[in-house]
Amino acid sequence: MAMENFKHFLVVLSVAAAAGLVSIIFVLRWVLHFREGLAWDGGPAEFNWHPVLMVIGFIFLQGTAIIVYRIPWTWHRSKLMMKFIHAGLNLLAFILAVISMVAVFDFHNAAKIPNMYSLHSWVGLAAVILYGLQLVLGVGMYLMPFTPASWRAAFMPLHVYGGLFLFTSVIAVALMGITEKLIFSLSDPKYKDSPPEAIFVNVLGLLLVVFGALILWIATRKSWKRPSEQILHTLHTDGGVEDSSKVGPALSQLSDVPNEETCGDVRKRSCKLDDQPNLLVNN
Amino acid sequence: MAMENFKHFLVVLSVAAAAGLVSIIFVLRWVLHFREGLAWDGGPAEFNWHPVLMVIGFIFLQGTAIIVYRIPWTWHRSKLMMKFIHAGLNLLAFILAVISMVAVFDFHNAAKIPNMYSLHSWVGLAAVILYGLQLVLGVGMYLMPFTPASWRAAFMPLHVYGGLFLFTSVIAVALMGITEKLIFSLSDPKYKDSPPEAIFVNVLGLLLVVFGALILWIATRKSWKRPSEQILHTLHTDGGVEDSSKVGPALSQLSDVPNEETCGDVRKRSCKLDDQPNLLVNN
Repeated sequence: MAMENFKHFLVVLSVAAAAGLVSIIFVLRWVLHFREGLAWDGGPAEFNWHPVLMVIGFIFLQGTAIIVYRIPWTWHRSKLMMKFIHAGLNLLAFILAVISMVAVFDFHNAAKIPNMYSLHSWVGLAAVILYGLQLVLGVGMYLMPFTPASWRAAFMPLHVYGGLFLFTSVIAVALMGITEKLIFSLSDPKYKDSPPEAIFVNVLGLLLVVFGALILWIATRKSWKRPSEQILHTLHTDGGVEDSSKVGPALSQLSDVPNEETCGDVRKRSCKLDDQPNLLVNN
Repeated sequence: MAMENFKHFLVVLSVAAAAGLVSIIFVLRWVLHFREGLAWDGGPAEFNWHPVLMVIGFIFLQGTAIIVYRIPWTWHRSKLMMKFIHAGLNLLAFILAVISMVAVFDFHNAAKIPNMYSLHSWVGLAAVILYGLQLVLGVGMYLMPFTPASWRAAFMPLHVYGGLFLFTSVIAVALMGITEKLIFSLSDPKYKDSPPEAIFVNVLGLLLVVFGALILWIATRKSWKRPSEQILHTLHTDGGVEDSSKVGPALSQLSDVPNEETCGDVRKRSCKLDDQPNLLVNN
């Protein structure tokens, strides 16, 4: 990565990290200062684990997992290790999301509130189920050594798109959740009277949107990709790649064209072109 | 586009169009059958223009504008004409969004409900303002003949990302709006009692998510891009591009690498490589 490009990356990463961390502080202050605090007692304080764990796990950790390959000071680590970190963060996010859902069901059941009636709950549950599927398929495809490279290649566009789509959906679901909770829990003054809590939690919503926007920006910049993709490309290209640091890797994760990921660390050397019909732009 | 690829595109496009059109039918049935109908009288029937115009304009037309370059039976048309259609659809979507907002302000003012207190209104207004900015910048960059090709190239990643981000945000805002409206307008039975209207409008929310997901999928598939990008690439590449219909264009819109768009129709022939330092993977 060229120095200017690296500085640009650092700025965006820093703002994203700040937005994410401030979101966590905001959600904690929301439940601890404005609401009933945290407990596991079937009451509102148990419900409060729901937004806290969703922001920490399903938003912050999932966002971190998405861009973990982009961080330059991990590039000397093996790709396999980074895959484990990627999968581990996503697994942790999934576990926290499930615990977070249990908190709501417990609270609802104790308070005799129906479950699963709102659009928030419908899209949210769909996202958790699809996220679990994505996790299982991701591990099966990219961490099982026996999975054929052709399968890895064929599945990669769906893995990348699915990951970004689920991350985006989870933020949209969080915005619906914030909307519901402020309407239900604020009375005298109500949400529409804009008490301090309403403003504070609206700002939390904006922070989540900013965090999501920056993670999606980082994830879709080709020139910020882990350079191994680029190396494989150079290896298999007849002509020299001029100023390849500037051009960046040729293969976008957000495309039909599979990238180096599809061959994995172990297979990189033996990865045949035949297994990757779409890999090269010019060969 | 190869035949199999074309069939795949047609299937996805058809499902997207169906989801979009059924969404419009759903929002019309919501306000006409379950709610107070449509009028411009300061009452609830004026409010009802808000969801109707948002779904038709800001979601369906914006989504159509995003993928209009991808439709193969427009590829014999000039790129400039397609740009006018793209800009025209976005302008229409913007106008409908503004009218739709006026309907809500009118309704709020007549009913003495405060404006701009909810997260829905904050993110929604931000989206409309940024959409207007995107429109002005888009016209200035890509429809003004005097705009330098280097500016067009430099701005393209932001134009593409901004467009997809705003489209996604608008759907998220719509989901918040549905949540608000169902909570506020349903009483005895309430939203949590899942009356038919609640289920019906939740399904509308799901349809909007499906429509959004498919538009984003279509927009981010490289091999579904308008082939002119590919032709320019072939022109400037020393080696032959083998099976380029399979590989698809080398340059993703969702990347740092500017594509043919940056040169426009008029400039295509005279477009210098010097103006596009990042254009070629191998030259």
